[in-house]
Amino acid sequence: MAKNARISNAVIRRLPRYRRYLADLQKKGVTKISSGEFSRLIGYTASQIRQDFNNFGEFGQQGYGYNVEDLHGEISDILGLNQEYKMVIVGGGNLGQAIANYTYYYKAGFKVYGIFEINPKLVGLKINDIDVMDYEDLVGYIEKNRIDIGIICTTKDSAQDVADKLCLSGVKGIWNFTPVDLKVSDQVALEQVHLSESLYSLAYHMNKEK
Amino acid sequence: MAKNARISNAVIRRLPRYRRYLADLQKKGVTKISSGEFSRLIGYTASQIRQDFNNFGEFGQQGYGYNVEDLHGEISDILGLNQEYKMVIVGGGNLGQAIANYTYYYKAGFKVYGIFEINPKLVGLKINDIDVMDYEDLVGYIEKNRIDIGIICTTKDSAQDVADKLCLSGVKGIWNFTPVDLKVSDQVALEQVHLSESLYSLAYHMNKEK
Repeated sequence: MAKNARISNAVIRRLPRYRRYLADLQKKGVTKISSGEFSRLIGYTASQIRQDFNNFGEFGQQGYGYNVEDLHGEISDILGLNQEYKMVIVGGGNLGQAIANYTYYYKAGFKVYGIFEINPKLVGLKINDIDVMDYEDLVGYIEKNRIDIGIICTTKDSAQDVADKLCLSGVKGIWNFTPVDLKVSDQVALEQVHLSESLYSLAYHMNKEK
Repeated sequence: MAKNARISNAVIRRLPRYRRYLADLQKKGVTKISSGEFSRLIGYTASQIRQDFNNFGEFGQQGYGYNVEDLHGEISDILGLNQEYKMVIVGGGNLGQAIANYTYYYKAGFKVYGIFEINPKLVGLKINDIDVMDYEDLVGYIEKNRIDIGIICTTKDSAQDVADKLCLSGVKGIWNFTPVDLKVSDQVALEQVHLSESLYSLAYHMNKEK
C-alpha cells in the first residue's frame, strides 16, 4: 500500500492519466519511453513529467528513458490499485443503477456489493446481479462485510445524512455524486463528481467568444 | 448570451458552485449576503470571493453586501444557463441510458433529443421517452435539428471517431464520458468527465497516511 503523504494533490490528479497512457503503450508493445516522447503523447512538458516522476523514486535512466511496465506498476501501487475495494451504492435510482451497471472500474478491482434504498418497491430486486437492500440495514451490512467505499446517489437533501451514516459505519472513502459539499470525518476520504457543474462549464465555453 | 472571454478558467470552475449556494440562499429567503458571510458558508476567503465577483461587474456595495437574486441571475447569464440546449447521446449502453434517465439537468434547460447506437437490437427502442436511432443517421439528425451538444458514452475505441462526426455535424460542445483525450476542432467546446480517474484519486486518498 502506498504511503506517499507528501505528494501534492496536483501530481496525484495527473497520475491516473499517466497510468492510462502507460497502459495503452504496454498494449502496443512499447517497453520504454523518454520524457520527451511521453511529452509529445500526453501534452505535458518533458520537465513536468520528470518532476512528477521524481516524486516517487528513481525511474528514468539518462539516455534510456522510462520502463513502461515498471512505471505503470509503481503508479498503480501509489494510487492503491493493486488491491480490491468493496463498495456499496446508496440510492437505487437512475444514477445508482447506472453505476451498478457500469462495469468499467470492475477491472480495476472496485466491486459493488450492495445497493441500499428507502423505496420498498426496489428493495429485494437485483440490479446487475447486485442485491437492492433496505437502507435501514446499511450500517450493519458495512460493518459485517468490511465495505471500503460508500457511493452516494441519493437526492441532494438526503446526502449529508447518508454521509453521516457511512462515516459511522466505518467506510474509508465516500464517492459523492450529489451536488452537495459534504462534511465527513477526518478518517474518511471524500471524492466528489460534479456532473452538473461539468455541464455548466461546457455551456460557458460554448458561449464564449472563440 | 455571456461574452466574457477574459474570465480565467479557475474562476469559471467556481461559478457553478457559487450559483448553487446562491440558489440555496434564495430558497431560504435570504436576499443579501456579505462576502464574509458567504466565505463562512462556501469555504473560500472573503477576498477570493470579492475578487471573483469583480471579474464580471460591480455587485457588492460597501456595507450592504451582495444581492443574492441579482448575483444568481448574473452568474447564470455568464454560464449561459438562461437558454435551452439540445443534446444527443451517442452510445445507448448503461452509461448512455443513465444519462438519458438522469433528469437532474433538465431543469437547467439541457434536453436530450435522441440516443444514437450501432447495436441494431437497441435501435427503435425508447429510453425515458427518447428515441434510440441508428448511429448512421447521427450527422443528418444533428444538422436538421440544430443540436448543440453531443454526449459521448461509447467505448473508448470509438470515441475519437464519434467526436470527429460530431464536429463535422456542427455541434458547439462535446461532453465526453470516455477515458480518452479527444482532439476536437477549435470551434467546439470540450468537457471531459473522468469517472475512473475520480475513483482512483479516492483510492489514493484512502490509502494515504492521515
